[in-house]
Amino acid sequence: MFVGKVVGSIVSTRKNEKLIGSKFMIVESVMDTSKERLVAVDNVGAGIGEIVLVATGSAARLCGKASDAPIDAAIVGIVDDGVGLSGM
Amino acid sequence: MFVGKVVGSIVSTRKNEKLIGSKFMIVESVMDTSKERLVAVDNVGAGIGEIVLVATGSAARLCGKASDAPIDAAIVGIVDDGVGLSGM
Amino acid sequence: MFVGKVVGSIVSTRKNEKLIGSKFMIVESVMDTSKERLVAVDNVGAGIGEIVLVATGSAARLCGKASDAPIDAAIVGIVDDGVGLSGM
Amino acid sequence: MFVGKVVGSIVSTRKNEKLIGSKFMIVESVMDTSKERLVAVDNVGAGIGEIVLVATGSAARLCGKASDAPIDAAIVGIVDDGVGLSGM
Amino acid sequence: MFVGKVVGSIVSTRKNEKLIGSKFMIVESVMDTSKERLVAVDNVGAGIGEIVLVATGSAARLCGKASDAPIDAAIVGIVDDGVGLSGM
Repeated sequence: MFVGKVVGSIVSTRKNEKLIGSKFMIVESVMDTSKERLVAVDNVGAGIGEIVLVATGSAARLCGKASDAPIDAAIVGIVDDGVGLSGM
Repeated sequence: MFVGKVVGSIVSTRKNEKLIGSKFMIVESVMDTSKERLVAVDNVGAGIGEIVLVATGSAARLCGKASDAPIDAAIVGIVDDGVGLSGM
Repeated sequence: MFVGKVVGSIVSTRKNEKLIGSKFMIVESVMDTSKERLVAVDNVGAGIGEIVLVATGSAARLCGKASDAPIDAAIVGIVDDGVGLSGM
Repeated sequence: MFVGKVVGSIVSTRKNEKLIGSKFMIVESVMDTSKERLVAVDNVGAGIGEIVLVATGSAARLCGKASDAPIDAAIVGIVDDGVGLSGM
Repeated sequence: MFVGKVVGSIVSTRKNEKLIGSKFMIVESVMDTSKERLVAVDNVGAGIGEIVLVATGSAARLCGKASDAPIDAAIVGIVDDGVGLSGM
């Protein structure tokens, strides 16, 4: 997993039907200075500016209702506190 | 997932039989300045120049009919709007 | 797998229910000079400063009780000794 | 997936028994200027110098007979033509 | 897969019980000049200095006895000869 900041979101009207109802957030890593970004499905009600924990790969499909949706990244927690992160 | 722009396509006549009928698009990331590219199977009718959402890994096989085709990336949505992307 | 040093930890109160009780440690690679970091679930009782072995991807879900928790990295061993690592 | 050029091959006599009979080709990416290389099992009869489509991860095990062989990359098509590739 | 040189090994006494008996080798890529390193479980009796073929991800769990061990990389062959590698 990695810790990142929610910096944006995207809107997609024409999409795979298993993705209907999903919230797509853009998360920027705060693990190091690379500031890598990806799109993660939100499962915990995260808002822009919040620091979150993101799981990638098949793990992302283990946190929602739709375990067969074509997603490869999901927000699985809101980070309250941390030691050892460059961005916190 | 990541958001990218469809910048090309490829044609492959001699291929694995489970890939027959698949449309292979070249997608360039707009998440950051690296402009990474990959080949993704199109499942939503995306055209060149469109901004799309791409899922990678085993997720890519959850959006089409052929869930046992050897693919590792798929276009799963057309992006209408977004906040926090360098290329939008 | 990779060998890394536990350099921190994170606290997440609002999280996926399958993650309740998990210890999230920040591990920094000592395989090379890149010092890449990620968040791994601890399964062996690792403390800050310890050198550990980390498994990523679906492998991470094969070491705890909750094999359906949305995790993609886990500490699977404490490293006692090694040859060929930059940080040891 | 990515498009690459077959630039070499390897010979391995002592190997996992499920790999007996596999052809291991070295493929160099033509997606960008990084020219990344990996070893992929050939399933379509690709020769050195040919431009091919490569699938990675669990997808690689969906194209041959031996779906339980320890492989993580496979050549799944010969590329006849393409738009948007640096190397074509 | 990638081809690498076995450059070291690690010892871990306190580890996940499914890893008991596994040999952990440090393998450095010879595919290019990046010389990336990872820890792979040895399944073919590779020694330090040998050139080996490594499979990563879920493929790594398809070559040993313990298919449910938390491993994400495995040595699957000894490379006798190769064309197109920087380190050979």
